[in-house]
Amino acid sequence: MVNPYDKAHELARALQESEPFRHVRDVRAKIRQDADAERMLNDFRKRQREWQAKLLGGESSEDEAKQIEKLYDVVTLHPLIRELFEAERRAMVLMDDVYRIVGEPLRRLGEE
Amino acid sequence: MVNPYDKAHELARALQESEPFRHVRDVRAKIRQDADAERMLNDFRKRQREWQAKLLGGESSEDEAKQIEKLYDVVTLHPLIRELFEAERRAMVLMDDVYRIVGEPLRRLGEE
Repeated sequence: MVNPYDKAHELARALQESEPFRHVRDVRAKIRQDADAERMLNDFRKRQREWQAKLLGGESSEDEAKQIEKLYDVVTLHPLIRELFEAERRAMVLMDDVYRIVGEPLRRLGEE
Repeated sequence: MVNPYDKAHELARALQESEPFRHVRDVRAKIRQDADAERMLNDFRKRQREWQAKLLGGESSEDEAKQIEKLYDVVTLHPLIRELFEAERRAMVLMDDVYRIVGEPLRRLGEE
């Protein structure tokens, strides 16, 4: 019988070394060398967090959503930031897939 | 480079064949052969679902919580039902551990 804990650790290592995860780390390292990109990214993340907090509190207006969208369009004009967001999106797709595959035996157990 | 999709499928198979998952399936099979146990279990699950729905809707009273607790104490007097709940608890502990291990690379990525 295969030990699921061993397999979970093997999967964690494979994720850590996967192309999407490497790509995120690489682009972030590049951004740390680029003061403009870093400032734009940090500013965008801050505005995004503030907006998400309002969204959760039900205080967000349609106007603010449009502002964030516009800001997104502006920051992604920077090639490194665009590359980072795309790499992060691919890492999230990978994680979604992995959670779906790993959760399947539990779902099957629930249906029996 | 190890393919994370392959590792995710290997982990899913290891979970499916793990002792806690097997145990849940085995006890459920035994319960299906025991009309009393099956009726008690189905009745308890139904009451529990109804109570959880009320809980989510904020309509649950302390009184009902105590009723469910008392019902739990009664149904777990049946050895097969007690065995099932214990097996299900162990399967959930395994899943929690697995999700924690597999989610670790993503958490680390978020902190960088």
